[in-house]
Amino acid sequence: MQTISCLLAAAAVISGAAAQTHQRLGGCPDLGCVFPPDQADFLAGQFFDIRLEVHSPINGTEARAGEPDPNFTFTITKKGGKSVPVANFFKIDEPVLERWNFTWYEDRFAEDAHSPSLVNVTSKIYRRVALYEPGEYEATLNYYGTQKTVANWLVRKMPHKRRAKNVILFIGDGMTTNMITAARLIAHKSINGKYMSKMALDKFPILGHQMTHSMDSFITDSANSATALYTGHKTTVNALGVYVDSSKNPFDDPKFETIVEIFKRQHPHAGIGIISTAFLADATPAALAAHTSKRGEYDHVISTFYEGVTNYTWTQWGGPDVLLGAGAENFLKSEEAKREYYDLFENNDYNLALNKTALQQAPDDQKLLGVFCKSNLPTWLDRNVYTSNLLNKTNAPDGSARDAEDLPGLKEMTLKAIDVLHKRNGKDGWFIMSEAASIDKQMHAMDYDRALGELLELDDTVSATIEKLKQLGELEDTLIIVTADHGHGFDVTGSVDTKYMEAQKDDRLKRNAIGYYGNSGLSQYTMSGPNSLRYSEGVHFPSQWDPRYTLHSGVVAFPDHRENYEVHKDGPRTPAVSTKDKKLGNIANYKDAVTGYLVNGTLPVNAAQGVHSLTDVPVFARGPCQELFGGVYNSIDIFFNMAECLGLSEKKK
Amino acid sequence: MQTISCLLAAAAVISGAAAQTHQRLGGCPDLGCVFPPDQADFLAGQFFDIRLEVHSPINGTEARAGEPDPNFTFTITKKGGKSVPVANFFKIDEPVLERWNFTWYEDRFAEDAHSPSLVNVTSKIYRRVALYEPGEYEATLNYYGTQKTVANWLVRKMPHKRRAKNVILFIGDGMTTNMITAARLIAHKSINGKYMSKMALDKFPILGHQMTHSMDSFITDSANSATALYTGHKTTVNALGVYVDSSKNPFDDPKFETIVEIFKRQHPHAGIGIISTAFLADATPAALAAHTSKRGEYDHVISTFYEGVTNYTWTQWGGPDVLLGAGAENFLKSEEAKREYYDLFENNDYNLALNKTALQQAPDDQKLLGVFCKSNLPTWLDRNVYTSNLLNKTNAPDGSARDAEDLPGLKEMTLKAIDVLHKRNGKDGWFIMSEAASIDKQMHAMDYDRALGELLELDDTVSATIEKLKQLGELEDTLIIVTADHGHGFDVTGSVDTKYMEAQKDDRLKRNAIGYYGNSGLSQYTMSGPNSLRYSEGVHFPSQWDPRYTLHSGVVAFPDHRENYEVHKDGPRTPAVSTKDKKLGNIANYKDAVTGYLVNGTLPVNAAQGVHSLTDVPVFARGPCQELFGGVYNSIDIFFNMAECLGLSEKKK
Repeated sequence: MQTISCLLAAAAVISGAAAQTHQRLGGCPDLGCVFPPDQADFLAGQFFDIRLEVHSPINGTEARAGEPDPNFTFTITKKGGKSVPVANFFKIDEPVLERWNFTWYEDRFAEDAHSPSLVNVTSKIYRRVALYEPGEYEATLNYYGTQKTVANWLVRKMPHKRRAKNVILFIGDGMTTNMITAARLIAHKSINGKYMSKMALDKFPILGHQMTHSMDSFITDSANSATALYTGHKTTVNALGVYVDSSKNPFDDPKFETIVEIFKRQHPHAGIGIISTAFLADATPAALAAHTSKRGEYDHVISTFYEGVTNYTWTQWGGPDVLLGAGAENFLKSEEAKREYYDLFENNDYNLALNKTALQQAPDDQKLLGVFCKSNLPTWLDRNVYTSNLLNKTNAPDGSARDAEDLPGLKEMTLKAIDVLHKRNGKDGWFIMSEAASIDKQMHAMDYDRALGELLELDDTVSATIEKLKQLGELEDTLIIVTADHGHGFDVTGSVDTKYMEAQKDDRLKRNAIGYYGNSGLSQYTMSGPNSLRYSEGVHFPSQWDPRYTLHSGVVAFPDHRENYEVHKDGPRTPAVSTKDKKLGNIANYKDAVTGYLVNGTLPVNAAQGVHSLTDVPVFARGPCQELFGGVYNSIDIFFNMAECLGLSEKKK
Repeated sequence: MQTISCLLAAAAVISGAAAQTHQRLGGCPDLGCVFPPDQADFLAGQFFDIRLEVHSPINGTEARAGEPDPNFTFTITKKGGKSVPVANFFKIDEPVLERWNFTWYEDRFAEDAHSPSLVNVTSKIYRRVALYEPGEYEATLNYYGTQKTVANWLVRKMPHKRRAKNVILFIGDGMTTNMITAARLIAHKSINGKYMSKMALDKFPILGHQMTHSMDSFITDSANSATALYTGHKTTVNALGVYVDSSKNPFDDPKFETIVEIFKRQHPHAGIGIISTAFLADATPAALAAHTSKRGEYDHVISTFYEGVTNYTWTQWGGPDVLLGAGAENFLKSEEAKREYYDLFENNDYNLALNKTALQQAPDDQKLLGVFCKSNLPTWLDRNVYTSNLLNKTNAPDGSARDAEDLPGLKEMTLKAIDVLHKRNGKDGWFIMSEAASIDKQMHAMDYDRALGELLELDDTVSATIEKLKQLGELEDTLIIVTADHGHGFDVTGSVDTKYMEAQKDDRLKRNAIGYYGNSGLSQYTMSGPNSLRYSEGVHFPSQWDPRYTLHSGVVAFPDHRENYEVHKDGPRTPAVSTKDKKLGNIANYKDAVTGYLVNGTLPVNAAQGVHSLTDVPVFARGPCQELFGGVYNSIDIFFNMAECLGLSEKKK
């Protein structure tokens, strides 16, 4: 029987691969570690730190006798050139040798048995260097006499000419193609399979896909992925603007410059806008400014918006001209902040807006900080349809016991940011990052209605942004990118007759309310009815959120939960609740879907929500350099393409 | 409190919408029906039939007194012109009035109560007409004196100049971006987040998304969606090349020409190749030739490959020059065929190949039918890795009791088709449809390993096709498109320590074997080991299919099943089995994943497999006209773009 012409004989080589899901240190499969690691790409002139570590595991499968090498050496070779010790190469002083140790678990069995592996470390860090000449470099760590770890680095060659005056990067956090398809279905009318209107995203001339995986795991978080988008360097889950070393200090890890640091360093009169519907210390806004291995270091994040990095000599870019979002608790000393940040920003010539009216009335010629509530901004669905959910939240941005009122949405924040930056930086151009954060947050909560509402708000914001830029005469000078930082495994597979499901008493019979293929029928969310919602010309959201026939939606991995496929009118969903018993973990929240049925989880019992997924995410681009964004590429290419379009690749002075 | 500047006052209009998931007749919300329906698009010169129906519901919510109108009239108006009775417009005879009745269920309650609604019908059909002048047309059915149903039709205006000599359309049945991402992860090595090799799809210059929804439901099947891709007309689930009328006859429905019918009508010396890893009567190959409302009419399908449509005057295109795939039972009179099709094809100057050797040795200058087994072709994984699964299948293509042997794959079939068409039709050009069918079939079975194997085989086939066309000097004259017909809600959310899962006894504890985010780690499928598989240069499949750490994969909707996340070495997966009790339906197949845990279903209990999903699917294009395929569009645009590239838009002679 004929088989496998393409399949060769089995390989004789045996590779002693460690368990790949539990790693001694991400990016460091050998006992010698180099950060930036093998295969790192750089923008010419981008500042970065170099961290070297030599590991001596005391126990575990890698155990060896002796201390970690204190005499390791490190050389850099430009391809075709000669090998030069690092301090000579960059003409910097040799740093002091550091020593520490750390522990890790080799796998889940070791974790259950509380048997950590201990590793002793010697390390050095070379701070704030840059490579200017495009091409390939070989960086070699020599240790333990004969061992070496080689990192191949590439400084990308690209044109130096600036092609875009402005760049606006919209990030739909967690947004996938699947979600866009579902959002279109509930908000845009179709007749016999032809849509009568288009989403703003559907009108973009260029479509791409970017791969979101991180350096040391194939599923990323938003810190890691935002870092890749803004810096061209993939790193480790929870890290912002640094590679993660094995030291305990979350502020000493090797940094690399972000696009706003580079842009402002080269163009001091350019403007920066940072906008999010999340709390502003959250990962996606934070990754433009912060440099820490722990995204949860919120005070560090706000301080870097305010005054940049202060513990080391680093690019002082002056902070964003416009900073708009939520998370008042991280600005208020009475809450979680270490300093009174509102006062500090105001002393630094920022206007402070704490509601939509103040936002819109703020003068366009001054810097602007807008913080509109504690925690995240309530969702579009709660702000616009189920407004009673805004009550009794005690989330006023001034720290009082009142509810936040007069809330702006992503659209109002983004349009105001454009006004301010156009006024202040109209000559030198600007960069805006505008994040629809709660697509992700509501996908985590498996609240698909709210997530899709956020996505539609993003689409509406993109549409209004294009219109605004047209009015200002800036559209053709502005590169507009809409993308995501990672996905969730969401899709729609049919419809649910909620009336029929409610009428059934048995969990198995309830499932017969689901129609698939031809029985999916048409979307009822766009149909007119006695209570249907209507919008301004060109604005598209569902006419009704609670039709009899709803979407049969889901994600591929979930905690124990119940499903009735109905909109949660009383506020965002809580699919699972803790039993407070660690072994039992989280169980389905009965109150979440009383009329529904139980689905047992496919995630570890410590998960109370859904998780991120692997899928490539879409990239929509229009404007100068749009052609760079077609096809399939790595997430870091978004950074390099934006940098190319802004002409940020440097020649050595 | 400020809300919803974009949200206007509730509409006063009440629309009496019927239950949208149960429809009297898809595409016919009124009592008068016009097919092609409102919003249909046409290629200039494309032949089509017009079916008119007037309904008189006897009972149910739409019940009315009296018979259906026998005196309805139908007019067509070119925009700016005058209204002309249809027979005059097309200069054809008035057809006879037909009468019939049918029943349907208004919703699941009516179905449970066995309370059908009865509808009496009057109807006429105008066969084989065409519109040549681009622009908008208004087609109006007048009935019951004052009622009317208006269909707005558009004949698309496009250049007449042919730009591509050849077109090859690859269809990854059920393939999504999410699956491509997962296939890349298991087959391509990466270092610190940078892939060391690229998929063929990742190298395409142009990326698009197409919307796959059908005319009357937002989830499509493969018949309906293939019809849209090949004809520019979306229709109803299970329909091939026709709109579905309400008559019982599956062969009298209103037809429209497919791209191969049009191409061959205009270019009699052009060549057609149809290739599938499914049985050849299956929907995706069938939709190029067949015209029936029931995709299950397999004998009709094979007969239309052999002799075209015979029950009406219709385009006689001569059938495919190359027809390669599986499903011998539909060719053998001893099995399910009504005639001995092998003999008929051979009498019609086809060579017959029943194995890979015969396929590859067949002369390139003669027509070729290749049928390699009964049912579907075994999967790539079974043909190449777990080959003992090919035994004891009694699936020989000659109808004997032997096992099919010496099986080709998609690559061998596609490359041979190119050789034959290049030899026979090198002057006038050719069109090939090549389908990786079992991406879909194995996704239905929730056998993600096999589905991804099929996807990687498609990618390898695309790569080899590009190389072959380059060798033949045809690459720059060939438009290559790779897309899908619909998706499945698949994604990857982490990894599974199969050793840890096996060691746990409790279903909840087993779930703790799953690692997500940073604990996903890296792909072990590409790692070398003592038993690792190796491939020829440039061919990429996993080095191992059964690493300790596997993918945590899933779909969003599923029957009851068990999960252990291990490759199924004994053959394709069967996730659920029937209880033979209709009310209880299908339950988890214990043997499918003995070491795993139980997941209760989120589909009706009559479902034993996964189902299709909503998501837009990717389109990769390269070659002449590639720029037409960027951005986001409707599935029917694939047809119109291919037709434009082949210069198929006609002027009236």
